[in-house]
This record gives sequence, C-alpha cells and structure tokens, in this order.
Amino acid sequence: MTELLSNYAAGRWQAGTGNGTPLFDPVLGNELVRVDSTGLDLDETFAFARQQGGAALRALTYRERAALLAAIVNVLQANRDAYYEIATANAGTVKNDSAVDIDGAIFTLGQYAKWGDALGDTRALRDGEAVKLGKEPVFQSQHLQVPREGVALFINAFNFPAWGLWEKAAPALLSGMPVIVKPATATAWLTQRMVRDVVDAGVLPVGALSVIAGSSAGLMDQLQPFDVVSFTGSAETAGAIRAHPAVTHRSVRCGIEADSLNSAVLLPGEAPGSEAFNLLVREVVREMTVKSGQKCTAIRRILVPAEVYDAAAEAIGAKLAGVTVGNPRNDSVRMGSLVSRAQLASVREGLAMLSAHTRVLHDGRDRPLVDADPALAACIGPVLLGARDADTAQLVHDVEVFGPVATLLPYRDSAHAVVLTQRGRGSLVTSLYGRDEAALTRITLAVAGSHGRVHVVTPDVGRAHSGHGNVMPMSQHGGPGRAGGGAELGGLRALDFYHQRSAVQASPTVLAALGLPDLA
Amino acid sequence: MTELLSNYAAGRWQAGTGNGTPLFDPVLGNELVRVDSTGLDLDETFAFARQQGGAALRALTYRERAALLAAIVNVLQANRDAYYEIATANAGTVKNDSAVDIDGAIFTLGQYAKWGDALGDTRALRDGEAVKLGKEPVFQSQHLQVPREGVALFINAFNFPAWGLWEKAAPALLSGMPVIVKPATATAWLTQRMVRDVVDAGVLPVGALSVIAGSSAGLMDQLQPFDVVSFTGSAETAGAIRAHPAVTHRSVRCGIEADSLNSAVLLPGEAPGSEAFNLLVREVVREMTVKSGQKCTAIRRILVPAEVYDAAAEAIGAKLAGVTVGNPRNDSVRMGSLVSRAQLASVREGLAMLSAHTRVLHDGRDRPLVDADPALAACIGPVLLGARDADTAQLVHDVEVFGPVATLLPYRDSAHAVVLTQRGRGSLVTSLYGRDEAALTRITLAVAGSHGRVHVVTPDVGRAHSGHGNVMPMSQHGGPGRAGGGAELGGLRALDFYHQRSAVQASPTVLAALGLPDLA
Repeated sequence: MTELLSNYAAGRWQAGTGNGTPLFDPVLGNELVRVDSTGLDLDETFAFARQQGGAALRALTYRERAALLAAIVNVLQANRDAYYEIATANAGTVKNDSAVDIDGAIFTLGQYAKWGDALGDTRALRDGEAVKLGKEPVFQSQHLQVPREGVALFINAFNFPAWGLWEKAAPALLSGMPVIVKPATATAWLTQRMVRDVVDAGVLPVGALSVIAGSSAGLMDQLQPFDVVSFTGSAETAGAIRAHPAVTHRSVRCGIEADSLNSAVLLPGEAPGSEAFNLLVREVVREMTVKSGQKCTAIRRILVPAEVYDAAAEAIGAKLAGVTVGNPRNDSVRMGSLVSRAQLASVREGLAMLSAHTRVLHDGRDRPLVDADPALAACIGPVLLGARDADTAQLVHDVEVFGPVATLLPYRDSAHAVVLTQRGRGSLVTSLYGRDEAALTRITLAVAGSHGRVHVVTPDVGRAHSGHGNVMPMSQHGGPGRAGGGAELGGLRALDFYHQRSAVQASPTVLAALGLPDLA
Repeated sequence: MTELLSNYAAGRWQAGTGNGTPLFDPVLGNELVRVDSTGLDLDETFAFARQQGGAALRALTYRERAALLAAIVNVLQANRDAYYEIATANAGTVKNDSAVDIDGAIFTLGQYAKWGDALGDTRALRDGEAVKLGKEPVFQSQHLQVPREGVALFINAFNFPAWGLWEKAAPALLSGMPVIVKPATATAWLTQRMVRDVVDAGVLPVGALSVIAGSSAGLMDQLQPFDVVSFTGSAETAGAIRAHPAVTHRSVRCGIEADSLNSAVLLPGEAPGSEAFNLLVREVVREMTVKSGQKCTAIRRILVPAEVYDAAAEAIGAKLAGVTVGNPRNDSVRMGSLVSRAQLASVREGLAMLSAHTRVLHDGRDRPLVDADPALAACIGPVLLGARDADTAQLVHDVEVFGPVATLLPYRDSAHAVVLTQRGRGSLVTSLYGRDEAALTRITLAVAGSHGRVHVVTPDVGRAHSGHGNVMPMSQHGGPGRAGGGAELGGLRALDFYHQRSAVQASPTVLAALGLPDLA
C-alpha cells in the first residue's frame, strides 16, 4: 500500500478512515500515494478555522500578515526540489512546465508580501476619500474595506496544484481570512506537501491554513454568510457550486474561474513572415504545448485573416512537428504527459466531437513517444485543427479540449474577428498581434467587454511580453460569462473578494479617529 | 373596468392581452388601474433592448449619457405633482413619505448626472494606473472598465416604485447599459408612469428603457452571459433568482438587496435624557414610522444598555403615542397606510410570530384611525416590542416585520452589543449613538464587517446627520449575508456592477493610444 496523505484540519494532522483514492504517475502508470478525508469532522474543521485562524489573522496588521507570506516564500524555496520531484511524478510535466506552477506560486506570494507590506500597520483599508453628505461638511461618508469574518474555501483544479493554492491564499491570508483548500484529487499531493511544509515550519497562526485531500462532499454545506468560496474548474461544476444553498440562500460570496475558449488574433494586413505573424505562430505553439495545453488561459482559437490561413496552418504545423513528447525525465522531451489517463480520454473525446466541424491540419498523435509506453502514458502529441467557415463551426466556440489542441479560423475583416472572439461568450484572455497601433487600440476596446484580459503583442515587445497564457499577479485573472465571472489577482484588487466594504457616515472628527492611514 | 396600463417593450407601447391584475388604494380599498404583460414577446423585448438600446447608449460618452440623466430629471420634475397623487392613491403615503421615494429618486438621478459629467467625453474608464510587468517598463498592465454589452434587468420591490427604479437606472444608463424594469405589481403604477413620461418626452435613445408591468414569468430565462440582474425584495425570492440557471450556469451577474434586521445602538454610559439617548429615541421613532416602516433600511432592533432599557421603552413609547395614523389626505395624519391589505396581513402574522419571544411595550394598534375604515384600510399603528433576554430571543434576530414595528433589546457591555448586531447575520445598516469617540470608532470597526453601512450619530451632528434609514447616493447601499451581499450606489462605485473590468497588457505606446483621460 502506498502512503496515505493526511489532512490538516482543526489544527492537527488527521488521516482519513477510508481506504483512500490512489494518485498515479501519468507517464509510468504506477500508484504514488493515496488521499482520503473519510471521517473528518467538518463542523469542527470550519469552526476552528473561522474562530482560531480568523481571530489570529485579524489581530495582525496588513504588514504583519505580509510578513507571513514572506515566511511562506522562504519555506517553499527551501523545499523547492521536492516539489519538482512531485510534479514530475504526479503531473508528468517537464521542468519548464513544473516551473510555471511552482515558481509561479512563489513569485505570486512574493509579490503579495511586497504589496501587503506597503499597506502598513493597519487593520482596515480606506476605500476612496470622505465625501460630505450635505451642503456643509459636518457629516461625511467614508468607505472602508474590512476583513470578512469568515473562512475562505478553495476548491481547486488539477492543473495548478501549487500556483492554484497560493495565488488565492496570498490575498486571502493578507486580507486576514483563514483558508481551507480542497485540491483536485489527481494532483493533490503537491498541494498537500506544500501545506505540510508550511504548517511544520510553524510560520502561520494555527487554523490559518487547512488542507482537505479527498472528497469535496459536505464542504459547501459548511459555508456561512460571511464565508467565501473560490472555485477553479469546469463550467458544469461551477454551476453546481453556484446552485448550492450556501450561495443562493446564505449569500456566501462565490468566485469562479472556469475554462474558456480563449483566442489569439493576427491583425489584418499582417502577411506571412511579418514580425507579427511570426510572433503569433510562436505564441500559439507555446500555448498549445506548455503544460500540454492544460491551462485555463491557453489559446484555443487562432483567428487569422482569411488570406493567410494556409500560411498560418503551415507555419504552426511546422513548429509543432518539432515538439518531442514523452517521459519528462528524458532531457530531449519538450512536452510531458496530460495529468491522467482520464484526461487523455477526455481530450480524445473532445477531438472526436470537434471533428464534426474541423479538419486536422497538423497531427502529432501519430508520432512515437519518447521513453513512454503509449499503453500506459497519458501522453498525446499536439493537434492543430482548422475550420474554413468560422461562423458555422459552432462547436469550436463551445467545446474546450483541455489539452494540446487549438483550432485555426479565418476571418474576413476586423469586425468579423471581434465577433468571433465574442462567440466564446466570455473568455479569460485574448491576444492581438500586429503593428498598427490605431487598429490594435480599436480592437482592444471592442473586445475588452468580453475578456478579462487583452494581451497586445507588437514587434517592439516581441521578446519582452509576458506571454498570452501566463497569469501575472499584477493583472486581473478572470473573465465574464463562460469564463465564470470571477476576478482574481490584479494586484491589491484581489483583496476586495476577501473584504467587506462598509460606508461609515459620521462627523469628520469621528472619521479622523478611525485612524486609517492614507494610501499613497 | 379601470385603465389597463401598457408595457413599453421593443420600442413601443404594448397592452397585455389578459384581463390584468388590479392595483388598489390601500386606504379606501377601491381599484385604481390594472397591469398585465400577457402575450408580450420577451425574446423581442430583450433582443431589442440589447441591440438597439445598448448600441445607442454605448455610442455616447459618459458625459453625453450624464446629460440624458439630467434630461430625465427635468421630465420628472415637470410631472412631479402627478407622482405625488399616484403615491397617495396607490401607496397610501403621507406627503413626506412620498417625498422619500419621489424626490429621493430625482436627487439621486441629479447626483449621477453631475458625477457622470465629470467623467468626460470618453467611452472607457481607467481603473488604476499602468504597472510594469517585468523589471523594465517596456510591457505594462493597465486595467480598464468598459460597459457590459448586455441588458440590465431590475426586479423591484413595492416600497420604492420611484427611487427603486432610478437609483439603479441612473448608474446603469450612465454606464451604457439599457434597462428593463419589472416593478412589484402592488405599486407598479408610479414606475410605469415615470417611464411613460420619460419615453414620451423622447429624451432617451429607443430601447434604453423598457417597463414590464405584470408577471415576472420568463424574465430570468431571457438573461444571457453579459446581462446583469438586480433584485430588491425578500430573501426567499432572492434565493430563487440566484438559483436560476441564468445565474448559476450563464454567469449572469446578480445583485441582491434583501431586507435585513438592522439595528440602532445606544452606547454604554449614555443615561436617559442625555443628548445621545434623545437622538436615538428620535431616530427610532422616525424609522418606525416613515413609510410605515416599509423601508429595507429601517431600524428593527434597538440595542440599549440594560440599565436604560425601561427608560428607553418609556421614551420611545411616549413619542409613538403622538403618531396619528390613517388617511394620508388628512393633514393631521402623520403616518399613512401599509401598501396593501396583504402587507397588513403579513405584518400581523409577523407580530404574532414575534410574540413568542417578546412582550409589547407600546401598542399603537388600539388607537382609532383618522379618516379611515379599519375594515378597508391597510393601516396599523406602530408597535414597540421588547425582550429582556436578547440572546435567547432568536426570532427577533431572524424575522423581519416589514411595518412600523421594532424590538427593544438590552445588552450587557459593548462586546455584547457588537455580537447582537451580528446576530442579524449581515445587515444593511446599523447606527451608533454616543459621545465617546474612542468607543464609537472601536465599535464602528467591529461592526463594519457585518454591515454595509455604519451610521454614527454624535451630539454635534444631531441636526445635520442624514438619517439612519435614508439612503444617500454617496454611500454604498447593500450589506453582506442576510442583506443579500449587494452593493448599490456609493457614488461612482455603482458603475462597477454595469462594467466589465479588463486588464490590457501592452507596450506603453499602445496603452497611451487607448486615449483614456486621467481621472482627477
């Protein structure tokens, strides 16, 4: 029997009482560890986090809580090698892809440690300036943001066991809210290990951070009015979470990041071989292959002027042909495996669905795997699909294949391109490639309403841009509609979700006595 | 047969094809008008608003849309007498109470016209400053707010047919979103009449404003991912709206204002006859009687130090005894009727429930009505309840009686008072009365997390404060938990609900070319 990972709940390590669910190496197929949360007292877990963890965190100032984040960074850095090993074994990712998750997490924590320190030694944040409520300034209104007096539950996705925890926990802990994380089972090991290291290092108040590795049953039932829940994953599960009475009837605040049909757009007038054309090709190939395309921000739809459709297909296909796929332990491998055989089956199913509306422009499935047994490994080569009529290929705008798959689509003019991006019904990100700044700004403003992020690549930032799918903590992560309507990160904007805004109406003397420092 | 009010939908006036639901005079009992929306083509209505209204509004700048609001103010002012007549007839309110609704609406519209004008001739708003995404400033992130490309559906409450429409429509129209309002049937007349006047005056683009007076059936089904819905009313209906697939599965943004168990707190150490004591007594009586207590912000729980419980009961009761109740057309009447006989029955039912945990300290029910027949009129005198053990009187913290009813509760010390305010599980507003500024600020920060607004009354603002239950457009309206989790008003903060935030990542040259004016 493999090791049964413990849960950290109510301030102590607790093993589940069931047999556990096994986690596998998606390349070699062997069982690695097991997780189980059977028998956990959820009433106690949530009450303990709310009372012990919440009270301890709220007793600290923002600057003191920022110091906690900095301490977490130190713990994670000290154990970084172990995380890479777990990622290789449990996620099947090559080193560069593991870095997106692990080093991305550490970088994000570090940013919030820095930003939080600048908030100073205060326990409430000023929201705007005081304004007078009548003709005379004798009675005024000052908005505050204060920590929500509840717990933050994270129900996380399998593709980012490290970053998915810390990009949420950093702003939550900085805001003074205790965190309970339920990682996706397939890759729960890395999340559990990071929490274990942080808990064992004793850098956080007891109750500030808990991990439940196992079943999500009963978690939503625990939520009370001042709690929040943040979910990352499929649109279907998102719907079920939003339909839970905790959200519908107890006003639990709910943040959703769902996958979306993100797009990349080559601007009109960019010929094959132009700098913008080449930048699009490079970015598409990168997005299709990083983490084997298992990123909620990955490019799924490639929109190009109709006249360069064939050239784009050829250029992308040629680069994809050079991508080696297989065992991430082999240095010649550029792209590892999907996270599980179940995901491999799901990707194959998605490809079968899309075949009704597309043809295959490049097929990486027929290439041999490096150092991996196709009967065991969850590996699949990249597949570029294409549809000459972007308007009628409805499935391409609806069905996300969560793997190394994207579809090339031709557009007639920039208005048509904008409409096609919007066919995703709300996406996390779109990226635009071109030289014409007037056209770029016009399209940016046209697509901003349906995208949480617009990433503009001009030749002058060809080397410096941060990447279409790379989620920077400075920028909002989350889009409307199909993307879930959430808003994470974006610097200190992320703190809003974990705060309650309140308008204090009082005399200027009382408002001054609140002792809120001015924010520069 | 009384007049059948028309709906304004898809750019034209359309009568329902059914018999209609009658609206009554709640004092005299006679039928006034009827509403009906049977046969309305909702597909057409919503598509027309989204396409015609939305496109026309988004083509304007913020300054131009602010001018539309100013034009609406002129229309409403010109027809103000008619609105007072409708309010008297259909809501049974005395003139001062009608003013809260009608003049409150006009004031709020005027504020947004002023604030919107200051946003200038732009079509997108800057959200914070650009920040660099790497060590060098060559690639940066600039957040924007852009109008959501959908429709704003308002499902409104019966108690504010005028203000309830315009406090939402002002920020929505300013944001460039077309509005469809479904007023509560009992008082739909005033809403319908105001929309009629504005439409007939031709001051808005066609499709920018629609009114459906009748059934709400099918409205939620119309909503698409970029739409928003704003509901004001009961917690039960709020739950049903949040559970609708439009919200759970299509990510329609949903704002809820539900009634809440608001409180007023007399600070420790304030003796009977002190300025703070007298200010609390005056405000409690005002809140219990304005609009016959039919305000979502009204004081429902009065928290006083245990030693002044009896004195507070006596002082509040003595003032309530002077409140004349009856026909609002009689100048000697201070408090008119409830909005309907159904509401009267609901208030009586609520009083019966609370009787299990309270005793009656002042009973206005046994006083004769002025100029009104108790067998016909929906009038009821104010009732002050009391419970000596605030901790065990659970119903007092759960059951809102939406009428001239409040409960007096004693507390032991300020920590106990804070806990009792939080027993409302999230409220719109609490008000604090006292001289001790240190204590006031301490309690303010302690209750801010569970209240959308904290109203602090010190002796120096005894005349100047804006009132516990009066919703000022400068301050946020909306509280966590039981209060629904919404956030309306609060100056330009209200625009967030009708905008999509998007992070634009680009070179500084491209960001500069977006042409966003700097906000002072």
